[in-house]
Amino acid sequence: MARLAIAPVRDLMKDSGAKMVAKAAVLKLVEYLEGECEALTRKAVGFAKHAGRKKVMLTDINLAIKG
Amino acid sequence: MARLAIAPVRDLMKDSGAKMVAKAAVLKLVEYLEGECEALTRKAVGFAKHAGRKKVMLTDINLAIKG
Repeated sequence: MARLAIAPVRDLMKDSGAKMVAKAAVLKLVEYLEGECEALTRKAVGFAKHAGRKKVMLTDINLAIKG
Repeated sequence: MARLAIAPVRDLMKDSGAKMVAKAAVLKLVEYLEGECEALTRKAVGFAKHAGRKKVMLTDINLAIKG
């Protein structure tokens, strides 16, 4: 399974006001974001199939994010 | 502002069943995940402050993810 990199997430956290962050906190957030990415993609794939496409388009992702 | 890389998100999408993905769909998902990362971190920073800490710990992230 592909993984998000840790360093960019830590950098984003620092830019979002977290001056000091425990490594376990970064790892947990990475894991959460990966799960969100997977769940939203699976929804989007379903929407693409529903529309008779194999390719996932922006509209599929937008629908998945909406809920 | 730090950014997540596009390639790992695209790879995660492919591992989640999206065999073909429009670039705009990947970019939107990256943008969404960045927003989630920022929002959860801001919540976690608030929880850390509430606990009298400057360092964001795993418990702060767990609370933020819970809601």
